[in-house]
Amino acid sequence: MYIIGELINGMYANIGTAIKEKNKDVIQKCALDQINAGADALDISCGTVLKDALSDMAWLVNVIQEVTDKPLVLDSSKPAVIESGLRVLKSKAIINSTTADSEKLEVLVPLAKKYNAKLIGITINTKGIPQNKDQRLELAATIVSFCSDAGFSLEDLFLDPILMPVNVAQAQMQDILESIKEFKVIAGPSVKTVVGLSNVSQGAKQRLLINRTFAVMAQACGLDAAILNPLDKDLMDEIITAELILNKQIYCDAYLDAYRKK
Amino acid sequence: MYIIGELINGMYANIGTAIKEKNKDVIQKCALDQINAGADALDISCGTVLKDALSDMAWLVNVIQEVTDKPLVLDSSKPAVIESGLRVLKSKAIINSTTADSEKLEVLVPLAKKYNAKLIGITINTKGIPQNKDQRLELAATIVSFCSDAGFSLEDLFLDPILMPVNVAQAQMQDILESIKEFKVIAGPSVKTVVGLSNVSQGAKQRLLINRTFAVMAQACGLDAAILNPLDKDLMDEIITAELILNKQIYCDAYLDAYRKK
Repeated sequence: MYIIGELINGMYANIGTAIKEKNKDVIQKCALDQINAGADALDISCGTVLKDALSDMAWLVNVIQEVTDKPLVLDSSKPAVIESGLRVLKSKAIINSTTADSEKLEVLVPLAKKYNAKLIGITINTKGIPQNKDQRLELAATIVSFCSDAGFSLEDLFLDPILMPVNVAQAQMQDILESIKEFKVIAGPSVKTVVGLSNVSQGAKQRLLINRTFAVMAQACGLDAAILNPLDKDLMDEIITAELILNKQIYCDAYLDAYRKK
Repeated sequence: MYIIGELINGMYANIGTAIKEKNKDVIQKCALDQINAGADALDISCGTVLKDALSDMAWLVNVIQEVTDKPLVLDSSKPAVIESGLRVLKSKAIINSTTADSEKLEVLVPLAKKYNAKLIGITINTKGIPQNKDQRLELAATIVSFCSDAGFSLEDLFLDPILMPVNVAQAQMQDILESIKEFKVIAGPSVKTVVGLSNVSQGAKQRLLINRTFAVMAQACGLDAAILNPLDKDLMDEIITAELILNKQIYCDAYLDAYRKK
């Protein structure tokens, strides 16, 4: 599975302070810790303080690419903030994210094409969060057909079924798992699937247990990528073991170490 | 998921000794420990020493039903040993197991009918272990059609895809997961699926991690039952959490305790 580290986010106090104080050591250590734990890419968000978001995003990208050339996932609800990162990023970018709304798609799909970036499309629109699988598939179809019409390769598209907390949307969990499978039915096998894993346990008491259990269930349903905390060792151990069971990682007694050193 | 405790097996040294010495305290404690940990039924095997297997099986059933009326899973390759348990058992029985061979089916299906027992059918025959999903489905179809012709209700049939160790049959794991889903396609939704979980990690170093990861992946594929060690708390926590995600267990902060006290 493609692991996107979630920890460089201004909403976390240590990162928010580091962005404010332009303390690049904190950011670079957080980047390297996640990569050493198995992250394939890093999500980068300035958080909710938007005063200096354009310059903050460019600064984050610059300090992180001093220490790694892993792909960066530029995470903002503001296309201008994302473009501020895209302008300075030398490695591959993933834009996080567009919704299924045409005003979002019309801005973000051309932006992704312009910078040769991948794109996460979340199955949500201004009407709100989908309440079942059919609504998720309908929104996915909207995103997919917009991308196809715009000549944006579906290989570069990640569909996100919008993962809800199990303690508020328990009846939707199976629909979300099935959506992960069925996105590939409607869009073909080249489209990727992704979830923001920690959403599933928001407000729950057993957060880490719920995160890792859902992750492995989603892998069994074909999930390609997840935005998560790679420093959660139990989570990573289970994700790596699921890769082993899915025959994506060759068995040896030291398969956990072998994966992390890949 | 329907949890079948695996620990009352003469192959384990403590149980083998207890059977030999007719020490019922050891057996009864092992039964109650598993039930208190969440087991819905108990697998009962005398082990490989067959000298006194008929009387041993009857003794085991009798001492266990002194302390519980949970269903017992009578586990032997010898139909006479199974019948020795069936004769004295007062609660519901599950016969473990028939293969897809007609000489087994012709004995065990009538035996299950005679004693109103459920039956585990393993997709294996004298030609050996199936090497892919199609072979598993073919053997499942043989078992299902024999049961249908014999008037044995498919609701009382558990199909077992024969779980192989990941370190020797890694390429078959995905076929096994898909077989769990597809057994219900060929036999209808009323048929149950079961695995002997600990097989998946035989000979591997990370046994418990592999067991619990596979269990949760199989639950995502619709697995109904597993024979496993319910005293493995991490395993049970994840199985219960998967039940929560599948909306089979209502969310509350204390859902783990609530499940065990059910």
